[in-house]
Amino acid sequence: MQLGKVVGRVWASVKNPGLEGQRLLIVQPVLPDLTPHGKPLICTDSTGAGAGEVIYWVRGREASFPFLPGEVASDATIVGIVDELHLGKKREPPC
Amino acid sequence: MQLGKVVGRVWASVKNPGLEGQRLLIVQPVLPDLTPHGKPLICTDSTGAGAGEVIYWVRGREASFPFLPGEVASDATIVGIVDELHLGKKREPPC
Amino acid sequence: MQLGKVVGRVWASVKNPGLEGQRLLIVQPVLPDLTPHGKPLICTDSTGAGAGEVIYWVRGREASFPFLPGEVASDATIVGIVDELHLGKKREPPC
Amino acid sequence: MQLGKVVGRVWASVKNPGLEGQRLLIVQPVLPDLTPHGKPLICTDSTGAGAGEVIYWVRGREASFPFLPGEVASDATIVGIVDELHLGKKREPPC
Amino acid sequence: MQLGKVVGRVWASVKNPGLEGQRLLIVQPVLPDLTPHGKPLICTDSTGAGAGEVIYWVRGREASFPFLPGEVASDATIVGIVDELHLGKKREPPC
Repeated sequence: MQLGKVVGRVWASVKNPGLEGQRLLIVQPVLPDLTPHGKPLICTDSTGAGAGEVIYWVRGREASFPFLPGEVASDATIVGIVDELHLGKKREPPC
Repeated sequence: MQLGKVVGRVWASVKNPGLEGQRLLIVQPVLPDLTPHGKPLICTDSTGAGAGEVIYWVRGREASFPFLPGEVASDATIVGIVDELHLGKKREPPC
Repeated sequence: MQLGKVVGRVWASVKNPGLEGQRLLIVQPVLPDLTPHGKPLICTDSTGAGAGEVIYWVRGREASFPFLPGEVASDATIVGIVDELHLGKKREPPC
Repeated sequence: MQLGKVVGRVWASVKNPGLEGQRLLIVQPVLPDLTPHGKPLICTDSTGAGAGEVIYWVRGREASFPFLPGEVASDATIVGIVDELHLGKKREPPC
Repeated sequence: MQLGKVVGRVWASVKNPGLEGQRLLIVQPVLPDLTPHGKPLICTDSTGAGAGEVIYWVRGREASFPFLPGEVASDATIVGIVDELHLGKKREPPC
């Protein structure tokens, strides 16, 4: 899984039926110290995450597991909202 | 999923039967502000997207979901046409 | 899928039974204008492609679809030979 | 599989049910000489690895195999703790 | 598939049962002219490859095919030992 921050949202009226009813969030990947790193991507969401929240997402075949037995055509899904990060010896709140 | 723009098309007379009847579009990946980023790729399409449209595609195993129960040998499929992007506080139309 | 050009071939006497009888071609990834881009890889072939031809390949789980119901241990397979590329407003022959 | 070092941990109260009860470790990828290389990621764990240990992880569909028949929505799982690395002619203990 | 050279080995006493009895080799990816390129990785082996040999490996879901019907938690497996490479007009022995 990778860390990211929700930075936006996508609206699409024409989409594959396997994505109907799914919120599509724009996620900026971040490092554990929360600095942005890499290219934003679009994720489906299984957690109710909102703008500005630090999350982690799963990609590939596993991205459709949270929606089973439905067939959701997603390759990236938010599976958790971060409360706290512990790096080395100290804990850091994510926001 | 990732954002991209349809920039061209590929014609192939010799192809795997699993791709017969599929349009093959050349997609340029873009960032949420629509600047090009990264290498173009070839996608199958489940939306009817045309040249110049901003779309998002899914890759990997999920790329063949829109064509189930057919076995389409594709690893990248367009699954939505973008109406609007909302980044931070303002909404932006994609074109 | 991605565009590439067949640039060579690999011979291997010791190989996994799932690859017996498969030609193994060396493919140089190319951009739509056919300039080389990225690292060559080894592909199985479902099209009869030969040296110098512009092709596109599929990777991941889909790379074994053309060989079903056989279990071919391949993660990259050529699935089409390009006749023509259409980028923006003009068509370009691939060679 | 790739080599890494456990450098931290993530706490999340809101998460996908498929990740309930899983420890989520922050892993820094390392080269065989144990220098850091690349971006940290979040892994589930099937070995009991602790902070500072050199491990290897598996990604993709295989990342959920250690948890079968459960459906764990993970795309990266620690599958071994390294005792020793042998590179060229000499063996090196990992710590 | 990608070309690589076996450059070392990993010992691990604590590992996922799905990797019991598997040799874990350190592989340096190489280009067709055998210059190193990219980051070493750890592969399981289905060929009996030894140190210094030029091999090709398969990644992703296919990496567990050579071990079916066993469930081996591997995402990278050596599936062939290279005898000869043919690039453009001339053949080159790999060592």
